Amino acid sequence: MSVATAMPSLLGQAFEQVQSEVDSVFDAFLPVPDDTRARLIEAMRYAVIGGGKRVRPLLLVATAELFGVNRNAAINAGCAVEAIHAYSLIHDDLPCMDDDEMRHGKPTLHKAFDEATAVLAGDSLHALAFDILTQPDTSTDPFVRAELVATLARASGHDGMAGGQMMDIVSEEQSYDLRQVTRLQQLKTGALLAASVEMGAVLGRVAPEGRTHLRAYARDIGLAFQIADDLLDVEGDETLAGKALRKDEEQGKQTFVTLMGVEQARAQATMLVEQAGDHLATYGDDARLLVELAHFIVKRDH
Amino acid sequence: MSVATAMPSLLGQAFEQVQSEVDSVFDAFLPVPDDTRARLIEAMRYAVIGGGKRVRPLLLVATAELFGVNRNAAINAGCAVEAIHAYSLIHDDLPCMDDDEMRHGKPTLHKAFDEATAVLAGDSLHALAFDILTQPDTSTDPFVRAELVATLARASGHDGMAGGQMMDIVSEEQSYDLRQVTRLQQLKTGALLAASVEMGAVLGRVAPEGRTHLRAYARDIGLAFQIADDLLDVEGDETLAGKALRKDEEQGKQTFVTLMGVEQARAQATMLVEQAGDHLATYGDDARLLVELAHFIVKRDH
Repeated sequence: MSVATAMPSLLGQAFEQVQSEVDSVFDAFLPVPDDTRARLIEAMRYAVIGGGKRVRPLLLVATAELFGVNRNAAINAGCAVEAIHAYSLIHDDLPCMDDDEMRHGKPTLHKAFDEATAVLAGDSLHALAFDILTQPDTSTDPFVRAELVATLARASGHDGMAGGQMMDIVSEEQSYDLRQVTRLQQLKTGALLAASVEMGAVLGRVAPEGRTHLRAYARDIGLAFQIADDLLDVEGDETLAGKALRKDEEQGKQTFVTLMGVEQARAQATMLVEQAGDHLATYGDDARLLVELAHFIVKRDH
Repeated sequence: MSVATAMPSLLGQAFEQVQSEVDSVFDAFLPVPDDTRARLIEAMRYAVIGGGKRVRPLLLVATAELFGVNRNAAINAGCAVEAIHAYSLIHDDLPCMDDDEMRHGKPTLHKAFDEATAVLAGDSLHALAFDILTQPDTSTDPFVRAELVATLARASGHDGMAGGQMMDIVSEEQSYDLRQVTRLQQLKTGALLAASVEMGAVLGRVAPEGRTHLRAYARDIGLAFQIADDLLDVEGDETLAGKALRKDEEQGKQTFVTLMGVEQARAQATMLVEQAGDHLATYGDDARLLVELAHFIVKRDH
């Protein structure tokens, strides 16, 4: 992955390691069968192996590391979040949704395969996420397994990611103010990023009342992530991004950038990232990776 | 629901009660929010409230009753299976899949709303299923919650229902033999019916080695169910079925009926239902509802 080249070495190495581990887990979970389901499993592999930055798995693993969680357990849970993220991109790219042709620098799944396979591959990755979370390898403690499932299901459903996507669709017809755009983005992008951090804490057996600083960090980077995405949509390079840009303006959507202007949006993202880092002060140098990840989120070029 | 009218009273009453309880649970889980997610939640409600026979929840509840499981817990788990079933129908009906316009006697979800909403409503019901299973109301024991999730995730993913749907799509291009049609149907329809029975046993804390008879019952009714469906597709009344029929022939698919003929298919379904009942002999009269349900499965007219 080229992500590493422009990054400081601690973060660059962390990304490379997680990317390789996530690929291995998906490879192991998705052997291609010797029957006519092969097309489905090949489509799932196309979507989850060898592409994507793996921001969510890294967030989860870096949080879990704070509490000495077993590495393989954290990678498994990270793959579950990534499977949800991947299914949402497949369905989002469909002609009846955003109708996108490129993703991660290659044809979207329904272009490489077909629409029916894309619907089913998304659905199957959705189920795979929960299948992975209930493996004893992810946690030997059923309470932890059940809490991981509860966290991910809530973050991805109608009160989380999917709810945010609905708000996003409606925003093409209805002009949102800053409060509504913030709420939309907290659900659409923020909920799954926050779940990644939360699940790291669940694996670390941190009680809910001990997760306050982590939740504040997650909230701030979630918003910063989306502001950076809106800036990329306006200023980014399509080749580096590996997908179509300038879509918000085309669709007439209000974004952080249309509502705040480029300069104020950039200042807001920078402020949020600084604030996110401050929330982790209590963890000292152990949280260095999470702090660097926050900075990467606003500086990334794709 | 008109299902009850043509049925013996024990089964008819059981269906009516489960239908009403399932509707109540979905109603409670899906309050319509005062924001632009409203369209999504209304679509979810359209799909899961007031329609469908509720065969899977009744299977689960009737199995759970054998082991004295709390009724509300079993209904919750039944709603999770029904949410998965409902999402699969929504996605199956999409123009890029089966392109159906009627379901349960009313317009399919993408006709009543739109395609993007249908994709998201399906995805949100998928997440809701796992959300419901991790509620303490479903089980106070996290081990049971995690096992319910594991059972449902595996039954619905690429090694279960979704895998069967892929095989079904490929069957339009490729001529299957009886072995392949059986395998397809075991995955596409059988896996979720079997999961319903299995989850009743999980709630009843029956160890896997104690589930042999129940699994044999589930396997037999799963096949009988699909043979009956194939017979309905050939001989059924579209008004009673509430959906388009004669689709298998149009799409050139091999089915139990094309491969065995109407008479042999009917005899096979009847034999399977008798055999399914025999597997439950060990439970005596307690299993009367499950036995009647097996008979209903082949006699139903929709």
